[in-house]
Formats: sequence, structure tokens, C-alpha cells
Amino acid sequence: MYSFKNDYSEGAHPALLKALVESNMQQEEGYGYDTYTKQAIWLLKEKIQNPNIDIHFLTGGTQTNLTAISAFLKPHHAVIAPHTGHIFVNEAGAIEATGHKVITVPGDNGKLKPEQVEAVLASHPDEHTVKPKLVYISNPTELGTIYQKDELRALKEVCSKHNLYLYVDGARLGSALVSMENDMTLAEFAVYPDAFYIGGTKNGALMGEALVIQREELKEDFRYSMKQKGAMLAKSRLLGIQFVELFKGHLFWDLADHANQMAKKLQDGLAENGVSFLANTSTNQLFPILSEQMIQELQKQYSFYVWERVNADSSAIRLITSWATKEEMVEKFIQDVREIKNRCENKQTTFASQT
Amino acid sequence: MYSFKNDYSEGAHPALLKALVESNMQQEEGYGYDTYTKQAIWLLKEKIQNPNIDIHFLTGGTQTNLTAISAFLKPHHAVIAPHTGHIFVNEAGAIEATGHKVITVPGDNGKLKPEQVEAVLASHPDEHTVKPKLVYISNPTELGTIYQKDELRALKEVCSKHNLYLYVDGARLGSALVSMENDMTLAEFAVYPDAFYIGGTKNGALMGEALVIQREELKEDFRYSMKQKGAMLAKSRLLGIQFVELFKGHLFWDLADHANQMAKKLQDGLAENGVSFLANTSTNQLFPILSEQMIQELQKQYSFYVWERVNADSSAIRLITSWATKEEMVEKFIQDVREIKNRCENKQTTFASQT
Amino acid sequence: MYSFKNDYSEGAHPALLKALVESNMQQEEGYGYDTYTKQAIWLLKEKIQNPNIDIHFLTGGTQTNLTAISAFLKPHHAVIAPHTGHIFVNEAGAIEATGHKVITVPGDNGKLKPEQVEAVLASHPDEHTVKPKLVYISNPTELGTIYQKDELRALKEVCSKHNLYLYVDGARLGSALVSMENDMTLAEFAVYPDAFYIGGTKNGALMGEALVIQREELKEDFRYSMKQKGAMLAKSRLLGIQFVELFKGHLFWDLADHANQMAKKLQDGLAENGVSFLANTSTNQLFPILSEQMIQELQKQYSFYVWERVNADSSAIRLITSWATKEEMVEKFIQDVREIKNRCENKQTTFASQT
Amino acid sequence: MYSFKNDYSEGAHPALLKALVESNMQQEEGYGYDTYTKQAIWLLKEKIQNPNIDIHFLTGGTQTNLTAISAFLKPHHAVIAPHTGHIFVNEAGAIEATGHKVITVPGDNGKLKPEQVEAVLASHPDEHTVKPKLVYISNPTELGTIYQKDELRALKEVCSKHNLYLYVDGARLGSALVSMENDMTLAEFAVYPDAFYIGGTKNGALMGEALVIQREELKEDFRYSMKQKGAMLAKSRLLGIQFVELFKGHLFWDLADHANQMAKKLQDGLAENGVSFLANTSTNQLFPILSEQMIQELQKQYSFYVWERVNADSSAIRLITSWATKEEMVEKFIQDVREIKNRCENKQTTFASQT
Repeated sequence: MYSFKNDYSEGAHPALLKALVESNMQQEEGYGYDTYTKQAIWLLKEKIQNPNIDIHFLTGGTQTNLTAISAFLKPHHAVIAPHTGHIFVNEAGAIEATGHKVITVPGDNGKLKPEQVEAVLASHPDEHTVKPKLVYISNPTELGTIYQKDELRALKEVCSKHNLYLYVDGARLGSALVSMENDMTLAEFAVYPDAFYIGGTKNGALMGEALVIQREELKEDFRYSMKQKGAMLAKSRLLGIQFVELFKGHLFWDLADHANQMAKKLQDGLAENGVSFLANTSTNQLFPILSEQMIQELQKQYSFYVWERVNADSSAIRLITSWATKEEMVEKFIQDVREIKNRCENKQTTFASQT
Repeated sequence: MYSFKNDYSEGAHPALLKALVESNMQQEEGYGYDTYTKQAIWLLKEKIQNPNIDIHFLTGGTQTNLTAISAFLKPHHAVIAPHTGHIFVNEAGAIEATGHKVITVPGDNGKLKPEQVEAVLASHPDEHTVKPKLVYISNPTELGTIYQKDELRALKEVCSKHNLYLYVDGARLGSALVSMENDMTLAEFAVYPDAFYIGGTKNGALMGEALVIQREELKEDFRYSMKQKGAMLAKSRLLGIQFVELFKGHLFWDLADHANQMAKKLQDGLAENGVSFLANTSTNQLFPILSEQMIQELQKQYSFYVWERVNADSSAIRLITSWATKEEMVEKFIQDVREIKNRCENKQTTFASQT
Repeated sequence: MYSFKNDYSEGAHPALLKALVESNMQQEEGYGYDTYTKQAIWLLKEKIQNPNIDIHFLTGGTQTNLTAISAFLKPHHAVIAPHTGHIFVNEAGAIEATGHKVITVPGDNGKLKPEQVEAVLASHPDEHTVKPKLVYISNPTELGTIYQKDELRALKEVCSKHNLYLYVDGARLGSALVSMENDMTLAEFAVYPDAFYIGGTKNGALMGEALVIQREELKEDFRYSMKQKGAMLAKSRLLGIQFVELFKGHLFWDLADHANQMAKKLQDGLAENGVSFLANTSTNQLFPILSEQMIQELQKQYSFYVWERVNADSSAIRLITSWATKEEMVEKFIQDVREIKNRCENKQTTFASQT
Repeated sequence: MYSFKNDYSEGAHPALLKALVESNMQQEEGYGYDTYTKQAIWLLKEKIQNPNIDIHFLTGGTQTNLTAISAFLKPHHAVIAPHTGHIFVNEAGAIEATGHKVITVPGDNGKLKPEQVEAVLASHPDEHTVKPKLVYISNPTELGTIYQKDELRALKEVCSKHNLYLYVDGARLGSALVSMENDMTLAEFAVYPDAFYIGGTKNGALMGEALVIQREELKEDFRYSMKQKGAMLAKSRLLGIQFVELFKGHLFWDLADHANQMAKKLQDGLAENGVSFLANTSTNQLFPILSEQMIQELQKQYSFYVWERVNADSSAIRLITSWATKEEMVEKFIQDVREIKNRCENKQTTFASQT
């Protein structure tokens, strides 16, 4: 059984493990004051080309989102997010649990548009409603689509106009940055959000997300928020070491690139075999539409999510590739699709010729 | 300027004020242990025909909703509500501020249907989402419609089946109970919700809502929750005295009946003059559709909310009547509509004949 | 049975009820936009001699404290309070329920000292502890003592030095302001706190506290916080009308003065009869030390709290007077103490002479 | 510079790293459903000799405490803890941030006594105070002392009598279990708490704590709480693998034993050189009292916390040993103390003979 279910099925890229092993017996300070964390912060500031940002390492996406958002907002503030937003759908109400309403809008291919932000503001005029204060988006979105520079700039402008914070969930940011459709470097991207995080868990780390805070008023006392939410590791070296490995060279981008390449190969291979897709994506998520019979056959050898029913006879499935996806398994998957397809068609032909 | 804007524009029914004045210098215990509160609880148990309920008096609807719902739920529990639900739209995120997500469904004429509850449960299967635990409805709904016995029973059944709590916001419950469409007495209605409240503020009291808790597990320690949320009045007599007056005879129903009668009169009078309505209601809220010109003319003499744009030339407005609405003002409003209408039509005729 | 148990046993001063009755059928806006609330705000600004303050009316002390403090603080902020502080002892953990730790120090006669504030800061150096941000005191304190100008100024200075907010719970502020020991007018007092409230419930109103916010950064969006905490009355006129009556002339001070006079009379009368006191107070709370036998006798005719055991044979009780305390009952209480004392002493004498 | 500052200065025990490396490319399910987590749960149930417990792995102590306690309590519930309790002193108000007051009592050598629990209950009689519901202790305590079976049983009894939950913070539980003073096996210890956690971070893991829930009513839906608090790792294998290594044999105990041995050696060596201690401990924390001059000399070569001033000339320092503490460094430390001492004394002698 081979898994295309997610991008966190394997451990960490071997280089990260190697660094952990080599530094293991060195004594280090804890709680973010170890030498590796400091080095990782320095490296990230360099890659982002901005020394005036604050960087904190946390262990996971939900933790990062809830710690950041609850630290940034006052009790009467609310979040605006697309209806597919991870904080709205898949984080067990973590944001609401910190006291903040998440106001959603339908989303367009997973993306939020400036006019939708303004529509939310218009319907929240006074204290009988909450006060929208932070715009949450993901890049790539939950549907694997990405924001282009123009789109991000437009969102930033509407946020600035209404004094809203722009926050980007970058659980798979690496995949967006190396996408063929992407038109921004990390440094160019980083100009827009008031805060965002760079996902490590889904890009080759054991765990770890790097939260980048750019807006001055959001920086103060953030370590208090981390500690209070249980998001500050005693052995912070564990996060620091991994991010040093990811960012001292190009490993972060290389790993994302491998994931995207494998997705592209899958996409092309399936398309050649007549498979269509729920959405056009250029990152490491694919949503091919397959017949129920095909899905059942494939499930004997592969694990993946069945995403949504498309019509009476077929559903979209979700395939995710990662830094660890093996090329031969991608090839095998395509071949299996071809063979199952042929077999089914032969059966139908046979059946047709018999009748 | 006469107001049809809401049902809390005047003070209290004179009988309530009289009782306040007469009892004023009597010394009483505080925090719900005064003799009036005890008497009001006794009277309500009698009217509801159930001695095994707990009753608490709070000062307003938002306070009652947030105190009750946060006391009933565990941190990972969520609320299911219609999209128009007061807690979702008009309470400044009070429920989320206590940590609970409110999951909404479109609603049918403001009402929630059992199959919608089940659909929410189906899309919240495990700990990556919140766990729906309480169904919130209002009777009457925010659109002035009411639940009939069959509808309420069906909701109760789906709640029982899935071990959900059914909670009814009765800010205007009096108006529902005396509505022509209603088929339940207070006692018959009270059988279904695990908890509900009977609104006083919008039915002739200075302020005050009576929360009725029926389900055993929700009763424990509720006074702690009230105190902790700042919802326990030192001079609780103020609430007790008013509810004694409302429920020692039929005053509660009589006041609601007057409100409904005035709404009916308005409805009939407007309909006779060719006005149509956004929704068919039988309570104290009306949503007549009027031309922009008509609305502007009426706004010179009356205050009311413009509810929503219906087409290029006209909008629905919201008219609310109450225990204090003067019949002559209702008549005058209808007459003014007729006159403005005639004037406009004459103008148009004149204009037409001139061209 | 006559009660010296608290200062909220009766209803409201008759002038307040009269104003409620007279204005009753007048239509008014809700939620703080009625004409009376506006007038009350204007009057209070005048008495405080500061037009640049924000004033909001809430219904009770716990509600005011929790709404204000939770609005003012960020999640990692904590409160410093004396160990006897009402928020720490008697509000059901309301502040902690909004997420904030209350750090207490022993208190000196109920009062907090600047050096105690600094000691707390010294023991809270970094993010492993919470960050103290607001100093909470009551004037008068829970023990009936009051802050003098010098003490308040010194607290304000230490707060300013460390960028802490100074918040004063004024549930019985009237009693402090008319105390013989007091050396500040309301306007002079109001200069020091960043925010404070003026208690109505314990000074002749049915309910109601006036929150005064002086510091600019604490003013923003406070109405959102009120609505979100269920602290915004629909019929806000109820609060406005009462505060207009209290502050359009000197009624607020007169009522507090009556309470203090009655306390003084009790104090003098008891002292004359050889009674000593737990603390020296100049407000409307007394803590006379009486023998257990005396207490039992008095409890047949009067209700009051037994405050704390002082020695094997005697306890301090708490007597509270109010705007409504009847002079003849004060006289009767003193007389009863004298008589019971004589009776007991005679018995002892008799017993002594017999042996 | 060698550190005796804490027990999390090094990485993980090499066996754990080896297991991580060897399993690295194996595909596993996430969020606690990986095969290693399942195996670790099975191993722990075996060691605890109870199949009817629930076990969850979290990343750190503060996270475990706040996730567990907030899941177990209703909003009006409070925690009772010794004044030195880690949740009260060193977790940035994390428990209060989830809405719960922590009520503290002085503590006796860091330990809580049953009569103190009852005294807290007596002073929290009704809804004007919070309702104590959970007793929090640490074993070992923050002072390095441990609970003996009798003490733990007595606490459990008082909890059972009053329907309180008993929760034990076991950040350093290993050290307690191998202490010479300890009279319970893990299985014997585990009988008493309703829930407790076994610390991995301070006992040789990269990070990780195993929360054990014994009481039935506390088990339900705990995974929801973990997800909602951001405490559920995507690559849960990381925790599972480490706990398998710690508990498949005796590694957990062996590591703790090394830490305690090193502490004992330090203790004996210092005692032999005339050093006295602030407290008698039998775990991996020592509080030797040294002169300021000695402390300054030692700080040139070692890092440790200066704990508290004992008199004008000397302070207690805190030395912590761990699974990774090198015996030769312990010997060197003792030798350095001896030498510094001799040098100082010689100086004084010289000085004395000169004068």
C-alpha cells in the first residue's frame, strides 16, 4: 500500500536527521535561545531580505494559526476567511476557542477577493456585530491554487485601506513558491502579509513552522503568547536545527520542487489517459475525477482521500505528493490507471459485443 | 416622529412600575433569593405545568444566550443555528467569545429543519472539526415566522437521536404563543426544548428574561455561571417583581396579543392599499415592500428599519409593534400610506396626461 | 427582622422611581442612544470636570469589572490586586474566566501600596510568567477604608512608571467621597485612574454603574465589548434616567452621606457601650467585635454577616448602612446592644455574687 | 562552560535518535494513528498494568497541563495547587487563559496536604466564589521533593470525598520513581491520580509527554481538545517512536536513575566539603547553599540558576542533573568547589595571620 494521502507520511529529509544526530550531545539553551534557532532566524531574514521582521518557530499549523491570531486580535475582533479556509474547516474550532468569530465568504477557487472583504465590512457596521480585523488566506489554498502577485497586492491594499491585518497560512508555502504559476520570490511575497508562516511539517521537517511577523504592533510580547498557549518547546534546538538545514542552502525549495514535479508527472500521466480534474492546480495537490470502479481498484494498492462526488458514477480524489514521493510509484500509479481503464473498457466492449 | 422600529421603545407596562413602586422600601434578600423571584419561579412552574424545571432571571437576550450556552457546552462543542440566528448575526460574536463556533445553515423562512441538522453532523465527523452539540433556534424567528408543534417535535427528535441539546431563544416568545398560526400552549411548547427563555424586555418589562432549564444535566451549578458572567443582579427583586406581574394573571399574553393585533391591523390596512410583503408573518414583525419614494415620505414621520432592497425601485421595511403601540398611530400610518400613494399616482397620472 | 446585611436591600430612591414612571410612555432609542443616557453622560462629564472622558452605563459591579478589564487587556496580561479585592474573592472567577490571572498581594488594611506593585513586577520578569498590566483597587476597599490623595497619586505614579493601567472599582465610591477622611472631590479623584466606575446599585439605584474611561487607548470600541459580554441593555433609558436623577443635583452625594451618617451613629453608639472594632472605617461599613452570646441575641431581630472569629468568645460582624437605613432602627440597634449587654452583665454579677 | 541549569540541554538519548533514523522513510498515518504511537500506548498500558486507561502524547508540559485541565473542567471550576505549582508560577498564566482560576495554598516543602484542600473548599462555599474541582500537584514537586504512597493516598481520599479530580504533573516523574525515598512502582503510583502525565522532555526525549487518563468521564472526546489547542502533531510518529524506545525496556527508568545518581554524587561530594542544602531532595534537583564569592567563581565555568538569597553572604543555587550529565563533570564540579573553598579559606587565614 503506497500513500498519496498527504505530505506528512514519512519522517524528515535525511539531512535534517543527520544534523540532529550530529549536534545531539551539545548543550544548548532552551525556549528559543539556542544557537540553532538564532542561526535559523538569521538565515530566514536573509532569504526574506528584511532584517526588521520577527521570527518564531512553532510545532504545527493549527498551533501557529491560533497562537498568532489570538495574540494579534482584541476580544471583539473577527477574522475574514474563505469558506474553505483551514482555520474554518479543519482546526476543530481553534480560533473560535480563543474567542474570535471566523466570518467566511464563498471563495473563488479557494481564493479571497478584495470585494468580498469589503462586502463583509459593509455587513458588519457596528457593535451589534463583531468587528472584522484580520484577513486570513492560505497560499497555496486548500484547493491547491495559488495567489499571484496582483491578487495579493490587491488584498493588501484593501486591508490597508480598512486597517485590517493580512495573515497568510503557508503550511505549503514552499509548493506555492516553486509553482510554475507563481510570480513572486519568497522576499517579494513577504512584502504583503502583516504576518505569515512558512510550513516545515509538510515540506520535509519532522515538524515546525516559521512564523514571520512584519507589522510592528504585532511583534510585541509574542513570546508570552507562545508560552501561554503551550507553543514554546523546551528543546527549541529541535526546530532551529531543522530550519537551518532547510534554509542554509536551497533545500526548502528543492524539496517543494520535487513534490511539485511529482504532481506534474502524475497530472500529465493521468491526462494522457483521458482523466480530467476538478481544478487546475500547479502545486502538490491534484483532484483527478475517476469512476467509482477505478477508485475501488486503486484503493487496493494506494491510499488517498475521496474528495467529493462529481456525478452518479464518479468522484474526485485527492492525490498529494511530497519531498519523499518516489518517482517509480508515480509511474506505477499512472500505469495502473491505464491498465484498469483498459481492462474496464475491454469488459465493456466484450459485454457490448456479446449483446 | 412615531417609532415602529422595535418593541423596546417605551418603558414598562404601568402595572409593573406600580408593583415596583409599592414594594420599594421593603427589605429583600439579593441575588435571586428575594420573595418576588421565588414567587415568579413558582408562577412560571405553574404556567409551564412542570415543577421539575429550573428558572433563572437574567437581564437581556444576549446575556441569557451566552450565559446559558457557555454553561451547557464543553470547550470543543459547537452550536448549529440558522443563518439568520440572532446569536450569529446580532450579538457581537458573544457565543464565539465564550469559545464556541456557531455553524450555520441557510434556514427556510428563518426556520431550521431536521435534515439540515443531520447534514451538519455528517460534515463534522471527527476531531479535525468541532463537535456540534447544541441546536439553537428562535421562536418566533428573526423573520417573524413561528414553529408549529410538528416542526418543533421533529427537531427535538433529531436532537434526541444524536444527543444534541435543543435551545430556543424566546426573546419574543409571547408573540409566537398568541399568534394565529400557533398550535401550542406555553406548557405544550415547553416540553420540547432542553432549555429556552421567555422574553420580558420585548414584552412589557423594563428588562428581564426567564431562562427555563428542563434537562437535568444542564441545571447543575447554573448560578455559578450567572455570577461569573456578570448576569446576577444584586437587587434581583427588580426582575422578580416584573415577572410576578406578567405571570400572576394573563398580562404576559395580553401584552403580546396587543402587539400581534396591531401588526395584523397594519398588515390588513397595507394589503388593502395594494402593499405586498417580503414574508408572511403572524407575529409582531412585518416586512412590507414599498417604493423608495414612499419610504422617504414615511421616514419624515415614522422611524423604522429599511430591511433589504427588493428591486431597483423598492425595498422591504421592517415594522414592529409592541404592547405599547397606539392603535391611532397604526391607523394614521395606514392612512398616510394611502395618501402618499394617491398623491404619487396622481402625479404620475398628471405627468402622463401632460406628456 | 431589620437588615444591616448590605446596601442593596431596598429598591431605589423614590426620586429615581418617580422619573421612571413619568418618562415611561415616551419612545426612546435603545442601547445607550436614548436622551437620558446622553444627558447622564453630560452631567457626569460636568461633575468630573472633564469633557474628554468616555462614560458607559452597565448593570452591576461584576459585569462592569469583567467587561472593562477584559476589554483593556491582551491575552497575556494579568491584574495586580490586593488579596481582599472583590474580583479575586467574590466574583466567581469572572476575570480569570475572561483569560486573565489575578496576582494578589496581602494588602494593608485592604489597600495596595506602590512597593507591592513593584515587587510583583520584579517576580514577573519574562514570558514564563504572565505580564502584569493593570492594577485593580477598590475605593472604599472591601474593609471600608479609603485611599487618600497621596496614596492614590503614589499608585498612579508607579503605574505610569511601568506603563500599567490603574483601575478603581467604585461600587461604593459615593461613600468614599463623602467620608470624613476623604480629601478629594470626584473631579480630583478622577484624575488618577485610567478607568473607574461609580456605583449606583449600592447608592440608591435599582441597578447601574457608570464606567468612566479616561485613557485614550482604552476607549476604542468599548461598546463592542459591552455588547459581546451581554452588558448592553436594550432599554438603556432605565440606566440613563436613574443616573440623571442621581447627578442632576447632589442626590448621589446626599444618599452616600446618609449612609455614612448612619454608620457613624452606629459606630459612636456602639463605642459608647464599650464595643471595639476590627478596623477603623469612615464609610458605610462597620466591623464591631461582639461576644457570641450578643451576636446570637441580635440575630433574633437583625440580619448581618458574621465576618470573622476574633477569639474564643467573640467575632467581628459586618454592619452596612445605606441611603435607606432608618435612623430609628440604628437607635434601636444601639439600645438593644446596651440592653443585652446589661442583661448579660447582670447575670454575671448575679452569678458572681452567688458564688 | 558546562550546564547544570536544567535537564533539557542536550538532544535525545541516542537510542531514540537511532529509531527515528531507521524508521524515517516508512510511510505512516498521522495524528496519533501511526503504528509507533499505538505500540507506545500498548507498552505504557502494560507498564501501568491497566488496559482501561487512555493515553495521549503531547509535546510539552505546559501544553499538556492546559489541554488536559481545560478539557476536564467546566467554566466555573477552579484548580487547587500549591503556591510553588508550575502552572501557577511558570506557565504564563496558561490555565487562567483557558478561563480557570488557580487557587493556591502555601505548600509544605512543595507538597499539598489534604487539610489544605478542605480549607480551600470551606472558603469557597457558593457561587460568589469559583467552585474548586481539580487538585493539581507535581511529583516530584518544584522543590525536588516527592510524595510517598501514604501522602498520595490521603490526597486521593480527600478528592474522592469531595468529588474533586486529582491531577499529577509528572514532568520529572521518572526521577521520582527511581528516587531512594520513593515507595511506589509506576503501576502503584498510577492508581491514585484521575489523570497524570509522564514527562519525556526532561527524561531523554527530544520532546514528548504521555498523558494518562484514568477516570472514565475525563476520557471522552479528548482528541478534540488536543486538536483545538494545537496539541496534535501531524507526524505523531515522532512522539510514538520515542516513547516506544523509552518503554519497550527499562530505558525510561535507567535514564532517570542516571540523573538521580549524578545528583546524589553531587550532593555527597558537596556535603563532604561542608556545603549545606536548602532542602533535602532525593531526585535530580539540588539546592546547595554557597557563598556569593563561591557562586561567582563557579559561574565562570558552569551555568546554573541562583535560586534564592539565604543570608547576607550566601545564596542557594539550583543544580539539575539529567540522563546526559557526565560523571567527570560532576567530579570536576565537586573538586572545583573544594579548591575554591580552600583558596578562599587560605586567603582568609593568610589575611587573618597578617592582621
